[in-house]
Amino acid sequence: MGILRIGHVALRVLDLERAVHHYTKVLGLLQSHVDDDGSVYLKGWDEWDLYSLKLTESDRAGVEHIAYKVHRDADLDALAARVEAWGIAVSRHEAGHLEGCGKTIRFPLPSGHVMVLYAEKAFRGKSVGTLDPEPWPDGLEGAGVHWLDHVMLMCPVDLGAGVNTVADNVRFLQEALDFYVAEQVLAGPDHSVQAAAWLFRGNKPHDLAMAGGPVAGLHHIAFYLDSWHDLLRATDVLGKHRVKMDVTPQRHGITRGQTTYFFDPSGNRNEMFAGLGYYAQPDMPTITWHAEELWRGIFFHHGEPRPDFIEVYT
Amino acid sequence: MGILRIGHVALRVLDLERAVHHYTKVLGLLQSHVDDDGSVYLKGWDEWDLYSLKLTESDRAGVEHIAYKVHRDADLDALAARVEAWGIAVSRHEAGHLEGCGKTIRFPLPSGHVMVLYAEKAFRGKSVGTLDPEPWPDGLEGAGVHWLDHVMLMCPVDLGAGVNTVADNVRFLQEALDFYVAEQVLAGPDHSVQAAAWLFRGNKPHDLAMAGGPVAGLHHIAFYLDSWHDLLRATDVLGKHRVKMDVTPQRHGITRGQTTYFFDPSGNRNEMFAGLGYYAQPDMPTITWHAEELWRGIFFHHGEPRPDFIEVYT
Amino acid sequence: MGILRIGHVALRVLDLERAVHHYTKVLGLLQSHVDDDGSVYLKGWDEWDLYSLKLTESDRAGVEHIAYKVHRDADLDALAARVEAWGIAVSRHEAGHLEGCGKTIRFPLPSGHVMVLYAEKAFRGKSVGTLDPEPWPDGLEGAGVHWLDHVMLMCPVDLGAGVNTVADNVRFLQEALDFYVAEQVLAGPDHSVQAAAWLFRGNKPHDLAMAGGPVAGLHHIAFYLDSWHDLLRATDVLGKHRVKMDVTPQRHGITRGQTTYFFDPSGNRNEMFAGLGYYAQPDMPTITWHAEELWRGIFFHHGEPRPDFIEVYT
Amino acid sequence: MGILRIGHVALRVLDLERAVHHYTKVLGLLQSHVDDDGSVYLKGWDEWDLYSLKLTESDRAGVEHIAYKVHRDADLDALAARVEAWGIAVSRHEAGHLEGCGKTIRFPLPSGHVMVLYAEKAFRGKSVGTLDPEPWPDGLEGAGVHWLDHVMLMCPVDLGAGVNTVADNVRFLQEALDFYVAEQVLAGPDHSVQAAAWLFRGNKPHDLAMAGGPVAGLHHIAFYLDSWHDLLRATDVLGKHRVKMDVTPQRHGITRGQTTYFFDPSGNRNEMFAGLGYYAQPDMPTITWHAEELWRGIFFHHGEPRPDFIEVYT
Repeated sequence: MGILRIGHVALRVLDLERAVHHYTKVLGLLQSHVDDDGSVYLKGWDEWDLYSLKLTESDRAGVEHIAYKVHRDADLDALAARVEAWGIAVSRHEAGHLEGCGKTIRFPLPSGHVMVLYAEKAFRGKSVGTLDPEPWPDGLEGAGVHWLDHVMLMCPVDLGAGVNTVADNVRFLQEALDFYVAEQVLAGPDHSVQAAAWLFRGNKPHDLAMAGGPVAGLHHIAFYLDSWHDLLRATDVLGKHRVKMDVTPQRHGITRGQTTYFFDPSGNRNEMFAGLGYYAQPDMPTITWHAEELWRGIFFHHGEPRPDFIEVYT
Repeated sequence: MGILRIGHVALRVLDLERAVHHYTKVLGLLQSHVDDDGSVYLKGWDEWDLYSLKLTESDRAGVEHIAYKVHRDADLDALAARVEAWGIAVSRHEAGHLEGCGKTIRFPLPSGHVMVLYAEKAFRGKSVGTLDPEPWPDGLEGAGVHWLDHVMLMCPVDLGAGVNTVADNVRFLQEALDFYVAEQVLAGPDHSVQAAAWLFRGNKPHDLAMAGGPVAGLHHIAFYLDSWHDLLRATDVLGKHRVKMDVTPQRHGITRGQTTYFFDPSGNRNEMFAGLGYYAQPDMPTITWHAEELWRGIFFHHGEPRPDFIEVYT
Repeated sequence: MGILRIGHVALRVLDLERAVHHYTKVLGLLQSHVDDDGSVYLKGWDEWDLYSLKLTESDRAGVEHIAYKVHRDADLDALAARVEAWGIAVSRHEAGHLEGCGKTIRFPLPSGHVMVLYAEKAFRGKSVGTLDPEPWPDGLEGAGVHWLDHVMLMCPVDLGAGVNTVADNVRFLQEALDFYVAEQVLAGPDHSVQAAAWLFRGNKPHDLAMAGGPVAGLHHIAFYLDSWHDLLRATDVLGKHRVKMDVTPQRHGITRGQTTYFFDPSGNRNEMFAGLGYYAQPDMPTITWHAEELWRGIFFHHGEPRPDFIEVYT
Repeated sequence: MGILRIGHVALRVLDLERAVHHYTKVLGLLQSHVDDDGSVYLKGWDEWDLYSLKLTESDRAGVEHIAYKVHRDADLDALAARVEAWGIAVSRHEAGHLEGCGKTIRFPLPSGHVMVLYAEKAFRGKSVGTLDPEPWPDGLEGAGVHWLDHVMLMCPVDLGAGVNTVADNVRFLQEALDFYVAEQVLAGPDHSVQAAAWLFRGNKPHDLAMAGGPVAGLHHIAFYLDSWHDLLRATDVLGKHRVKMDVTPQRHGITRGQTTYFFDPSGNRNEMFAGLGYYAQPDMPTITWHAEELWRGIFFHHGEPRPDFIEVYT
């Protein structure tokens, strides 16, 4: 079965208290755990595992690692072997090495980002329970996001030096981890350069996305809402809290996402987006965007360049 | 009874053919008439009078006049007398002087804009008819806007010279034409300068709005949609047609409007907005925005200055 | 100016405590006052007057009176004279006779329902205030309805005895109180019998509706929501509270209403409905439904008879 | 990888012309093929394979077979072996035996329904294409459903005779075909009887559902819409076409579905439902509904029995 979904992101924040306030009171995640080092763990009301976001205070923002959940412990061994066969070194860790998790494997992506895989994580349960559940829980705060949905990474690209870790990551994720490519941006001469890609393991248009930049980093982490209407209400919540906005509610051409972007108090970009978009499947032909239509692909409504949307990240 | 609602806007456009395409194929108005001079008249599917928008080719964009419908012909005489008593000259015209309309009176607002009042206009009927009607008609094109909803005027303000035609207009519209003020922006020392105002005769937050600028002009004409979801679909239509956008879907703090702004091919700003907002009434206390919160009032989601939104108009 | 809007409904309930719970925790009205007799007064968060609903414990459910607000005290004298000229006796009361209100006039409609008019009511203010307000307040409970929107009365009709107080009410409300008819149902031979009507003073499709029945009573009181999506959430709230439902979310053909119906714990029918529907105006042609299409008009989605929807009321 | 998704349903209809009209003009599927026997093949605009619905004229309504797509031809052999090992006979067919498809295997479920698996089907493409696609195509008719989403089967249950093919199907689908159980209804003494179940292979709450009844049959086939707002518009379309309704827009407790049910002209029940509901995953604990809460689970808004919803099927 292999990889199921994004399991969590370990995020560095400059001020832990402000970060916890942002992710709980504004986004509506629930604090579920604090570890011995003081890192805070959060989950969405519609998630059942103990956490999907780890916040650790640091002197710089950004992502420490991204973790994906696999189906069974046996998948870890099989996938580790394939990663190593692809030429990437893997470190193996016993249960407990990753807070609340069983055995883990850890390796760098070609872009340099650290990826962790695990099959077991402590169970907490959805807020609505499993017996005769209501469709949503009472008492949600802020935007009430459902779950951590995906992450977008910025991957080093230097075409003059022959470096394109977007393309390297895509090939690795397809060949070693059985990801599928939902959409891609092709740039450069003859559209020969894969400048961005949206990959999935589940049936959403993306579980992991990446775009090229000068250095490795985090473009955004994204949380799920049910509808465009929920997105209005959620962005109203951002306005009430005077959150630093990046992109007000819009339609992506890419993934058809109904989306809004903003920044946490440390400058890490967040996304809230709504709806399934479309039903992604292994046999769905990959959607290609030519660079000439890139901005229409990103901002379908206005189609105008916003270089800072690509250039600013943590 | 006095003034009922905005009846139409007479708009100057640089290229009539492109304008008609924009207002019919993109916004979804219906062409209902062409006059002997070649001006084209349009209506929304949910309007019953012959037209709410007149397009005339010209070498400059902008508004020629705004027309409001009054209840009865007798209201025209009474209102003309009150306008004259207020110190503004009124010209009276027989039926037919204004295409498809009965008797009209015409006068300048203190800001210089030409206002026309009439009680009778040729009847065309809603697209859904009046016997056992369906909730919406088949075959709508583009965004399928319901009706022309309001207009916002830019009014000369030069505080150094003691000129504030926003405030003059407001006083005139209240005293001579029984408009009510839903919301206002107060700027300057001690918030003593009325820099913008939203006035109503019906029960929507605005039938006529105005803000201060260097010269008289048109800020935008606005069309009605039913919901935030219709606004997404309508803005998708704008994206499909590569319409020049100004503001993607957002929440106004002022009027609570769910809104999007864009330009017609001549540069006249259009708005599509959704929902009632709130129920405006003569005894509702006027809502005041202090200039310090102006941008939050305009763009509730991000609250950041967009000077071009105020400075660019026709 | 005459009548502005519905001001309040005085409702009889069988169990005051359960009723207050229903209207505050489920619908989300705010308790704003209790009088010396123990009656409880409630308002919506988006209303500015002290109350729009009065709950009085009684041994039978139903409506005690319906009250409409007029523009000025002077309107009360003028309207009282017109009501009397129409042949209906009017009682006049000093300020304070009606809790929290100024001078009132009171008279029976031809259907027997008691109507009260007033121009002044104690002010409480919207929950969002009037200075730089947010689009909606934090901390709303339940469905968070905005305001009391309208009422529908059941009016005695006995065609064999020559009695049709629907038609009598309509004529009275048009001739003496300047209401307009948005929509009507015509039944009987040659569609000669006005069996139901929806009247307005503001610009919504109805401020007061009525249908024929064997005895006078209350069909429903209705509260406003902003959108079809709010209606889903609000009906989810009804499900969570195990409220007795009558009609799940649907489209009315009549008024285009997006609606849901249910019962308060005393059996008084409530409605929550969403959106403006259309912009009602004095010069809008009345929409007519022939009895053959009545059920399509009421339940546009299925069009099937639900006699209990007409026959059950308080 | 095994089974990906529902591939198509082969449906028997009483009048082919009326059926095609219903599925194309009302639901908005696209006719993509007609075979030599006159059967008509349809697809949704957001599907890429040649068809997801086959309509064949017959003297009785109902389902002829349900087909699921697997990842690769090799999966067919592996799954056939597992089905046979489970004790069910499998017939194998060469490419072309099933119109437009590659190799197929065919076998009966324990409930008697015929299931077909295939890995290859002729490609047609989404209406929006794969290069710089728009979020939705112009020119959609009717409700514009995206894709065939799932099917619900009625499975023979006779507890007195020791027959429960709901439970048998569930066990078979889990053990032989790697389905997962998202939700189940437990009835009878000590909630020991699995009376209904919702199973998934993808990440939606259900790809295949089943409930117990006196004889095997089809409860409904379901089509996907993006949002609750699209569902309103789609049900308005049903009203315009006077389609026989079963359930107007509601919330399911089970799957959280935003849903409406109705009948095709042959009496086959259709569903349109909106939104993802939640993100189903193999490690998500199964949600259980006790029979006492069954009707709240089906109709979360009113929670009242509608026996015909279970008893009427084809």
